[in-house]
Amino acid sequence: MAGGGAAASALSSPWRMLLQRALDANAHLKHSTFFQLATVGEGGRPANRTVVFRGFQEHCDKIQIHTDARSNKVGELKEWPLGEICWYFTDSWEQFRISGIVDVIDGSSSDPAKLQQREKTWFASSMKTRSQYLGEPWPGVPVAEDNLDPSTGPVDAYCLLTLDPEKVDYVNLKSNQKLMFRRTQEGDHSSDWIAENASL
Amino acid sequence: MAGGGAAASALSSPWRMLLQRALDANAHLKHSTFFQLATVGEGGRPANRTVVFRGFQEHCDKIQIHTDARSNKVGELKEWPLGEICWYFTDSWEQFRISGIVDVIDGSSSDPAKLQQREKTWFASSMKTRSQYLGEPWPGVPVAEDNLDPSTGPVDAYCLLTLDPEKVDYVNLKSNQKLMFRRTQEGDHSSDWIAENASL
Repeated sequence: MAGGGAAASALSSPWRMLLQRALDANAHLKHSTFFQLATVGEGGRPANRTVVFRGFQEHCDKIQIHTDARSNKVGELKEWPLGEICWYFTDSWEQFRISGIVDVIDGSSSDPAKLQQREKTWFASSMKTRSQYLGEPWPGVPVAEDNLDPSTGPVDAYCLLTLDPEKVDYVNLKSNQKLMFRRTQEGDHSSDWIAENASL
Repeated sequence: MAGGGAAASALSSPWRMLLQRALDANAHLKHSTFFQLATVGEGGRPANRTVVFRGFQEHCDKIQIHTDARSNKVGELKEWPLGEICWYFTDSWEQFRISGIVDVIDGSSSDPAKLQQREKTWFASSMKTRSQYLGEPWPGVPVAEDNLDPSTGPVDAYCLLTLDPEKVDYVNLKSNQKLMFRRTQEGDHSSDWIAENASL
């Protein structure tokens, strides 16, 4: 019951219910868990790529993403740890823009709790997903799953990113509903968020 | 025949053929012309939103986007005119990341050729699309099309954005093919582009 209570608490952030409804309504589409993550790279250049939603961290609103430690975005985020997700649901015509600070958690992290979280998400991944981090010379190229022991912990190339939402901008293109949520203080309770006038 | 020749010339940029093939393969999906445009906003914050592909400008590779002059991205792009498109094709599992300089063309432009281009894209748009620029108080809220005379030129809120590609990063998640193209000089001929090693 403690777990259920914690889940309910995390879900109390006002935009989480909207997002869960969109995930449910679009669950029949494989790409419904794909979104685009914008970051700022060298020389202040915007960068943008498709990544996969790996769920929320327990008891909070942090959005989890897996990536290869060798990818450009890891270096970019270490320099400038801000990101904005654009998540468009193609069946329900809903868009969520979620911005916040991104934490890069690779094997070099000095925080035991973060290393534990990285290990947890590694073991929660399929063997197929894990095998993508063994690819050489480029990240993302899967190798035979047979080369990987299921009990082996995260390999060096495996990196967990968590985006901690500070602002969520919602638009429903079917109903023309717009909502904007801004976090006013640390925390994930509904009282930590306020709704503001939205603009495109 | 002159038009056909010009089109063939523009299509000679090596990535254009790949993109055209993806557009054709995904044409049955309404959202296949939607992509995410990343920019950099106030305080160096990344921003990201879904926009609609409005075709290429004639005789070149510039990607056309319509937007509301009152939207945040217009102000952001006037300050920092760089953008990266992330265009994921959900049926063929292909991703194009296209980065370049974005030109903001609103009614205040002093370049007659650009104003003409803006007028051209306005008249090429449906009445429904045009009516979205009459919405008050927020952009994007359509109003009755009856309020708009089909012969009336672009309204103040109508803004044309053109992104001039400098780098195109292509990945096919079905075949694991990766290609990266970089423009080496001004122009849209195949000789103006080189292919480089790609990374995720």
